[in-house]
Amino acid sequence: MTPYEFRLAVRTHDFRGPTAGHCGEYAQANLAILPESHAHDFLRFCHANPKACPLLGVGEPGDFRVAMLGRDIDIRNDVPAYNVYRYGELSERVGSLEAIWQDDFVVFAIGCSFSFEHMLALEGIALRHVEARCNVPMYRTRRENRRAGVFGGELVVSMRPMRGPDAIRAVQITSRFPAVHGAPVHIGDPAELGIADLARPDFGDAVAIRAGELPVFWACGVTAQTALMDAKLPLAIAHAPGHMLMTDITNASLAVF
Amino acid sequence: MTPYEFRLAVRTHDFRGPTAGHCGEYAQANLAILPESHAHDFLRFCHANPKACPLLGVGEPGDFRVAMLGRDIDIRNDVPAYNVYRYGELSERVGSLEAIWQDDFVVFAIGCSFSFEHMLALEGIALRHVEARCNVPMYRTRRENRRAGVFGGELVVSMRPMRGPDAIRAVQITSRFPAVHGAPVHIGDPAELGIADLARPDFGDAVAIRAGELPVFWACGVTAQTALMDAKLPLAIAHAPGHMLMTDITNASLAVF
Repeated sequence: MTPYEFRLAVRTHDFRGPTAGHCGEYAQANLAILPESHAHDFLRFCHANPKACPLLGVGEPGDFRVAMLGRDIDIRNDVPAYNVYRYGELSERVGSLEAIWQDDFVVFAIGCSFSFEHMLALEGIALRHVEARCNVPMYRTRRENRRAGVFGGELVVSMRPMRGPDAIRAVQITSRFPAVHGAPVHIGDPAELGIADLARPDFGDAVAIRAGELPVFWACGVTAQTALMDAKLPLAIAHAPGHMLMTDITNASLAVF
Repeated sequence: MTPYEFRLAVRTHDFRGPTAGHCGEYAQANLAILPESHAHDFLRFCHANPKACPLLGVGEPGDFRVAMLGRDIDIRNDVPAYNVYRYGELSERVGSLEAIWQDDFVVFAIGCSFSFEHMLALEGIALRHVEARCNVPMYRTRRENRRAGVFGGELVVSMRPMRGPDAIRAVQITSRFPAVHGAPVHIGDPAELGIADLARPDFGDAVAIRAGELPVFWACGVTAQTALMDAKLPLAIAHAPGHMLMTDITNASLAVF
């Protein structure tokens, strides 16, 4: 199935679930949608925090067809589930935005770790949360994001345990892909990030860290979502966790070298 | 002082000491010299073990002017001190090879960690052994080299303790320089390399590993020297440890991207 066909299946409600594992060669995107009044600040926020919020595309105000992301996209219907936030609280989970779309909405598509995980898997690096069929563990850190207007908060990271040689190879591979979080932000001691207990992630699921393995931490797109919620805008929209936007952008095309 | 001027100072015995810290923008080289009868095997050994023995240059048999390494080089006199091995034992340390040069000698110049340490320092990554003004700690591992003829033995690694973010940056920087050992071979657990005690290096000096730091291990050019000794050739020559050949090759020119 091509990404285009996948989006049509979503649009017609033939597909409704989490998007992990589909169209593996293509980039999936975190989605943030907010009124134009705060869009400039959010764009500045993403630009100032590129490891956590690398932008794959930004739409024109009111445009739900963000052509740079793929053929014939309809952002209002091409994501399997959306979270609608009002004043920072989750108010509804919806399967379409047609009923609430506004002419001043600006779409932000932010790179997703599925892309670099695909590249790691191609090189034979096993990922514990994939083996365990659970979500990657994610942690709020005490590392403050660079603030832009109402958007701030702390960095959220994902963690993947690896043996040393795999960690080295993973740094090399993910360094090639700054558009999908790039190189890790930390290896080793979680206390340096202000993480008290790896067994208790703030999002996702805990995974085992075996003898001889190091925790390897990447900046996580959830950072954008927590910044959006913390800003307590009257209205903001994001994809529901795990239910990403499938783009026509190949992961391979995102390599900077 | 240019590398050419530095070599002239060595040649005229105005300079006699270790070469660390001189002409920092230029690659220094580990030296191995052996008769043509074993040169092909040694070349195959270097080729099969490129992380430990990356070749910067190989001379024609009998040629002590290896032009690819620099202007007007005289390999017999341009290194401050040479170790002469007979049947695998150190027999003499000499300041010139003129008295023992043979027409069948083949010169091998192997990349040196000074080059990548210079690149790390340029990016503000502190190196413990430099701060402590001692030699980098080096360890014999239990990882077998790929054998070629009489040359085999185990990988020797050097170790630099770093905090996680510096270790990530160091992987990125050194990956650009495969001609001077490239990326680390291991981060973290020394037992995985068969190293029992980091406080007891086989070569060089022990350095402190502070809380929150990880040991980062690179393949080391001493691997070539131990392989040369283990082969117990009737005659083989190497630079004396720390007394390297200064080349005209800039470190920057060795970057592969």
